[in-house]
Amino acid sequence: MNSHYALINKLIAKPGKREEVIEILLAAGRPFQDNPACILYLVCKDARDPNIIWVEDLWTSKDEHTAALAKPEVRPFVAQAIPLLEGMPEQTEVEPIGGKEL
Amino acid sequence: MNSHYALINKLIAKPGKREEVIEILLAAGRPFQDNPACILYLVCKDARDPNIIWVEDLWTSKDEHTAALAKPEVRPFVAQAIPLLEGMPEQTEVEPIGGKEL
Repeated sequence: MNSHYALINKLIAKPGKREEVIEILLAAGRPFQDNPACILYLVCKDARDPNIIWVEDLWTSKDEHTAALAKPEVRPFVAQAIPLLEGMPEQTEVEPIGGKEL
Repeated sequence: MNSHYALINKLIAKPGKREEVIEILLAAGRPFQDNPACILYLVCKDARDPNIIWVEDLWTSKDEHTAALAKPEVRPFVAQAIPLLEGMPEQTEVEPIGGKEL
Protein backbone atom coordinates (compact mmCIF):
# COMPACT_ATOMS: atom_id res chain seq x y z
CA MET A 1 0.00 0.00 0.00
CA ASN A 2 3.04 2.27 0.08
CA SER A 3 2.23 4.13 -3.09
CA HIS A 4 -1.39 4.74 -2.16
CA TYR A 5 -2.86 8.08 -1.23
CA ALA A 6 -5.72 8.61 1.17
CA LEU A 7 -7.66 11.54 2.53
CA ILE A 8 -10.19 11.95 5.29
CA ASN A 9 -12.30 15.01 4.52
CA LYS A 10 -14.57 16.69 7.04
CA LEU A 11 -17.10 19.13 5.63
CA ILE A 12 -19.48 21.28 7.66
CA ALA A 13 -22.62 22.16 5.73
CA LYS A 14 -24.50 25.36 6.47
CA PRO A 15 -27.62 24.55 8.52
CA GLY A 16 -30.19 22.70 6.40
CA LYS A 17 -27.78 22.22 3.47
CA ARG A 18 -26.29 18.80 4.25
CA GLU A 19 -28.56 16.81 1.90
CA GLU A 20 -27.82 19.21 -0.94
CA VAL A 21 -24.06 18.97 -0.37
CA ILE A 22 -24.28 15.17 -0.27
CA GLU A 23 -26.12 15.10 -3.61
CA ILE A 24 -23.35 17.24 -5.10
CA LEU A 25 -20.63 14.98 -3.66
CA LEU A 26 -22.31 11.86 -5.05
CA ALA A 27 -22.71 13.45 -8.47
CA ALA A 28 -19.08 14.65 -8.41
CA GLY A 29 -17.93 11.12 -7.67
CA ARG A 30 -19.87 9.38 -10.45
CA PRO A 31 -16.91 9.54 -12.88
CA PHE A 32 -14.74 7.80 -10.26
CA GLN A 33 -16.81 4.65 -10.84
CA ASP A 34 -14.95 4.03 -14.08
CA ASN A 35 -11.58 5.27 -12.83
CA PRO A 36 -9.42 2.37 -11.65
CA ALA A 37 -7.16 4.82 -9.77
CA CYS A 38 -10.03 5.40 -7.30
CA ILE A 39 -10.17 2.55 -4.80
CA LEU A 40 -12.54 4.13 -2.30
CA TYR A 41 -14.75 7.20 -2.35
CA LEU A 42 -17.18 7.00 0.51
CA VAL A 43 -19.55 9.83 1.41
CA CYS A 44 -20.92 9.59 4.96
CA LYS A 45 -23.14 11.56 7.29
CA ASP A 46 -21.84 12.17 10.79
CA ALA A 47 -24.23 10.19 13.00
CA ARG A 48 -24.24 12.81 15.78
CA ASP A 49 -23.85 16.22 14.15
CA PRO A 50 -26.61 17.03 11.61
CA ASN A 51 -24.36 19.36 9.59
CA ILE A 52 -21.20 17.29 9.24
CA ILE A 53 -20.22 15.15 6.25
CA TRP A 54 -17.17 12.89 6.04
CA VAL A 55 -15.64 11.75 2.77
CA GLU A 56 -13.08 8.94 2.73
CA ASP A 57 -10.84 8.79 -0.34
CA LEU A 58 -8.35 6.11 -1.33
CA TRP A 59 -6.43 6.49 -4.58
CA THR A 60 -3.52 4.70 -6.21
CA SER A 61 -1.51 7.96 -6.07
CA LYS A 62 -1.75 11.64 -5.17
CA ASP A 63 -1.29 12.57 -8.84
CA GLU A 64 -4.27 10.43 -9.87
CA HIS A 65 -6.43 12.11 -7.23
CA THR A 66 -5.34 15.59 -8.32
CA ALA A 67 -6.01 14.71 -11.97
CA ALA A 68 -9.47 13.31 -11.19
CA LEU A 69 -10.53 16.50 -9.36
CA ALA A 70 -9.19 18.69 -12.14
CA LYS A 71 -11.38 17.08 -14.83
CA PRO A 72 -13.92 19.42 -16.42
CA GLU A 73 -16.83 17.15 -15.42
CA VAL A 74 -15.85 17.32 -11.73
CA ARG A 75 -14.82 20.94 -11.21
CA PRO A 76 -18.33 22.48 -11.43
CA PHE A 77 -19.43 20.34 -8.48
CA VAL A 78 -16.66 21.70 -6.30
CA ALA A 79 -17.75 25.24 -7.20
CA GLN A 80 -21.39 24.35 -6.36
CA ALA A 81 -20.57 22.83 -2.98
CA ILE A 82 -18.23 25.47 -1.54
CA PRO A 83 -20.92 28.18 -0.93
CA LEU A 84 -23.05 25.61 0.94
CA LEU A 85 -20.27 24.96 3.47
CA GLU A 86 -19.16 26.67 6.65
CA GLY A 87 -15.57 27.42 5.72
CA MET A 88 -13.40 25.14 3.63
CA PRO A 89 -13.29 21.33 3.93
CA GLU A 90 -10.84 20.07 6.53
CA GLN A 91 -8.59 17.62 4.68
CA THR A 92 -6.41 15.17 6.56
CA GLU A 93 -3.85 13.47 4.36
CA VAL A 94 -3.11 9.97 5.57
CA GLU A 95 -0.77 7.18 4.55
CA PRO A 96 -2.58 3.82 4.34
CA ILE A 97 -0.50 1.11 5.98
CA GLY A 98 -2.71 -1.97 5.84
CA GLY A 99 -5.75 -3.74 7.17
CA LYS A 100 -8.36 -5.77 5.40
CA GLU A 101 -7.45 -6.10 1.72
CA LEU A 102 -9.81 -4.14 -0.49
CA MET B 1 -25.84 1.21 2.05
CA ASN B 2 -28.51 2.07 4.60
CA SER B 3 -27.83 -0.85 6.86
CA HIS B 4 -24.06 -0.33 6.89
CA TYR B 5 -22.07 0.91 9.85
CA ALA B 6 -18.93 2.96 9.62
CA LEU B 7 -16.48 4.49 12.05
CA ILE B 8 -13.62 6.92 11.68
CA ASN B 9 -11.23 6.36 14.58
CA LYS B 10 -8.48 8.80 15.54
CA LEU B 11 -5.82 7.47 17.89
CA ILE B 12 -2.98 9.49 19.38
CA ALA B 13 0.03 7.31 20.21
CA LYS B 14 2.37 8.29 23.01
CA PRO B 15 5.57 9.76 21.51
CA GLY B 16 7.62 7.05 19.79
CA LYS B 17 4.86 4.44 20.08
CA ARG B 18 3.03 4.86 16.77
CA GLU B 19 4.73 1.96 14.97
CA GLU B 20 4.00 -0.36 17.88
CA VAL B 21 0.34 0.66 17.97
CA ILE B 22 0.06 0.13 14.21
CA GLU B 23 1.48 -3.38 14.52
CA ILE B 24 -1.12 -4.15 17.18
CA LEU B 25 -3.93 -2.73 15.04
CA LEU B 26 -2.84 -4.79 12.02
CA ALA B 27 -2.62 -7.96 14.12
CA ALA B 28 -6.02 -7.23 15.70
CA GLY B 29 -7.55 -6.91 12.24
CA ARG B 30 -6.18 -10.14 10.79
CA PRO B 31 -9.35 -12.13 11.70
CA PHE B 32 -11.42 -9.54 9.79
CA GLN B 33 -9.86 -10.87 6.57
CA ASP B 34 -12.15 -13.90 6.72
CA ASN B 35 -15.16 -12.04 8.09
CA PRO B 36 -17.53 -11.06 5.29
CA ALA B 37 -19.21 -8.54 7.62
CA CYS B 38 -16.05 -6.41 7.45
CA ILE B 39 -16.04 -4.42 4.22
CA LEU B 40 -13.21 -2.02 5.06
CA TYR B 41 -10.62 -1.89 7.83
CA LEU B 42 -7.91 0.54 6.87
CA VAL B 43 -5.11 1.56 9.23
CA CYS B 44 -3.40 4.81 8.23
CA LYS B 45 -0.70 7.13 9.52
CA ASP B 46 -1.49 10.81 9.66
CA ALA B 47 0.82 12.35 7.07
CA ARG B 48 1.51 15.48 9.15
CA ASP B 49 1.40 14.46 12.82
CA PRO B 50 3.93 11.73 13.76
CA ASN B 51 1.80 10.43 16.63
CA ILE B 52 -1.63 10.18 14.99
CA ILE B 53 -3.22 7.04 13.53
CA TRP B 54 -6.54 6.87 11.69
CA VAL B 55 -8.57 3.70 11.31
CA GLU B 56 -11.45 3.56 8.86
CA ASP B 57 -14.02 0.83 9.47
CA LEU B 58 -16.95 -0.22 7.31
CA TRP B 59 -19.15 -3.10 8.44
CA THR B 60 -22.44 -4.58 7.31
CA SER B 61 -23.97 -3.68 10.68
CA LYS B 62 -23.15 -2.25 14.10
CA ASP B 63 -23.88 -5.63 15.69
CA GLU B 64 -21.34 -7.37 13.43
CA HIS B 65 -18.70 -4.81 14.40
CA THR B 66 -19.43 -5.19 18.11
CA ALA B 67 -19.29 -8.99 17.80
CA ALA B 68 -15.98 -8.89 15.90
CA LEU B 69 -14.32 -6.74 18.59
CA ALA B 70 -15.64 -8.95 21.38
CA LYS B 71 -14.01 -12.12 20.01
CA PRO B 72 -11.37 -13.63 22.29
CA GLU B 73 -8.69 -13.40 19.58
CA VAL B 74 -9.21 -9.64 19.21
CA ARG B 75 -9.71 -8.42 22.78
CA PRO B 76 -6.08 -8.86 23.95
CA PHE B 77 -4.93 -6.47 21.22
CA VAL B 78 -7.25 -3.76 22.49
CA ALA B 79 -5.80 -4.21 25.98
CA GLN B 80 -2.25 -4.00 24.57
CA ALA B 81 -2.89 -0.84 22.60
CA ILE B 82 -4.66 1.30 25.19
CA PRO B 83 -1.60 1.97 27.43
CA LEU B 84 0.36 3.12 24.36
CA LEU B 85 -2.18 5.85 23.60
CA GLU B 86 -2.69 9.37 24.85
CA GLY B 87 -6.24 9.05 26.16
CA MET B 88 -8.89 6.96 24.51
CA PRO B 89 -9.47 6.67 20.76
CA GLU B 90 -11.77 9.33 19.35
CA GLN B 91 -14.51 7.44 17.52
CA THR B 92 -16.77 9.17 15.02
CA GLU B 93 -19.75 7.10 14.03
CA VAL B 94 -20.82 7.83 10.49
CA GLU B 95 -23.61 6.70 8.19
CA PRO B 96 -22.31 5.73 4.76
CA ILE B 97 -24.51 7.17 2.02
CA GLY B 98 -22.75 6.29 -1.20
CA GLY B 99 -19.82 6.88 -3.49
CA LYS B 100 -17.66 4.46 -5.44
CA GLU B 101 -18.89 0.92 -4.91
CA LEU B 102 -16.42 -1.22 -3.00
